[in-house]
Amino acid sequence: MTDLYVDPSAQDRLASLVDEAFDLGVVARELGGRDLASLTDTVSPQGVVAVCRRVDVGLDEVVRPGARLLVCCVQVRDPGNAGTVVRCADAFGADGVVLSTGSVELTNPKTVRASVGSLFHLPLTVGADLAAVVAAAHAAGLQVLAADGSGDVELSELSRTGGLVAPTLWLFGNEAWGMPPEDRALADRVVRVPLYGAAESLNLATAAAVCLYTTATAQHDG
Amino acid sequence: MTDLYVDPSAQDRLASLVDEAFDLGVVARELGGRDLASLTDTVSPQGVVAVCRRVDVGLDEVVRPGARLLVCCVQVRDPGNAGTVVRCADAFGADGVVLSTGSVELTNPKTVRASVGSLFHLPLTVGADLAAVVAAAHAAGLQVLAADGSGDVELSELSRTGGLVAPTLWLFGNEAWGMPPEDRALADRVVRVPLYGAAESLNLATAAAVCLYTTATAQHDG
Repeated sequence: MTDLYVDPSAQDRLASLVDEAFDLGVVARELGGRDLASLTDTVSPQGVVAVCRRVDVGLDEVVRPGARLLVCCVQVRDPGNAGTVVRCADAFGADGVVLSTGSVELTNPKTVRASVGSLFHLPLTVGADLAAVVAAAHAAGLQVLAADGSGDVELSELSRTGGLVAPTLWLFGNEAWGMPPEDRALADRVVRVPLYGAAESLNLATAAAVCLYTTATAQHDG
Repeated sequence: MTDLYVDPSAQDRLASLVDEAFDLGVVARELGGRDLASLTDTVSPQGVVAVCRRVDVGLDEVVRPGARLLVCCVQVRDPGNAGTVVRCADAFGADGVVLSTGSVELTNPKTVRASVGSLFHLPLTVGADLAAVVAAAHAAGLQVLAADGSGDVELSELSRTGGLVAPTLWLFGNEAWGMPPEDRALADRVVRVPLYGAAESLNLATAAAVCLYTTATAQHDG
């Protein structure tokens, strides 16, 4: 964080945040409601705007030996989905997140908000070529699993048979068209979340949540 | 479905939908782009609008003996979340969904869209009093589990120890304030999704996805 602007009418509510920023060397500045609102794109801004440096790092800082759980969004375009995947990755203890070329910007305001702070909790890299990501994961000793409804193994079966205990990079595809065959072919396995009802698919972020929860649980309990 | 309006420019793309509607006794009518757009609230409408009857039924048609997996949204206000929970419930084979009093309208356009058709796949009831829902579930032989970060048992532990095989009603709380203590107290157990990273919580729909997947898998494999 480099700057912090606070609406005077929200200062009491945000006192502890302002104190924390001060301890980090950032002095909060007052900015009136309308001026502050001009810096955000929400209908009901929360009375505070922070200016932060970009958080993305190089691919080699994310996909590295020792990582146990990594996530790659492959051409994910919906900003809310991307942010929610980052939040889930953080929640389930992932060591980093990759956004491949063609994915939404990490700095999209909806992505930032949907991540609910998780953007700052784990290393992220953007604009990565998928083949390079997979090669780096293999070199770092991770298996590569693609989540796709076309998968030949069910997530629950893979979990039961110990297939999720190894260090793993998960690939999640686009919300509308999934993952093209040439991208799926880069993975060691294509895994499908079992569906028991009439729905044909899951929302991308919920599918990612299920895969990451199952893997994290297998790795922690295994 | 009682009526179907199709943009003439989209008729080729929608031919199979129009045929299916015809087989159900609904004759599609042409409606020009601007008139059609006035019936929707999306920025880029998809060239088709269907008019449907309300789909909600009585509580006793949802919470009934024989049900194995039921979902209750407790004062869930975000329309996208509610629709995504309905989609997840359908995907994981739930027997029905309840929206408690104070929840978003099932007919909210964002809820309908986020459900991606699942609204029509399983019985739904709205405006239900939570205590009545829980009483009906108990009478029908279901255990009642509340998902909440304050839970005294972890989902993964409950799953390992066979606690998810029984017929189950899941309660999911509001996206901002969770579930008040008096609501949680109605449940047999309060269950938390284990978090391994720095994120303090999960998005409501992703937490629901994880709980429902884990329960469905336990019930199908158990």
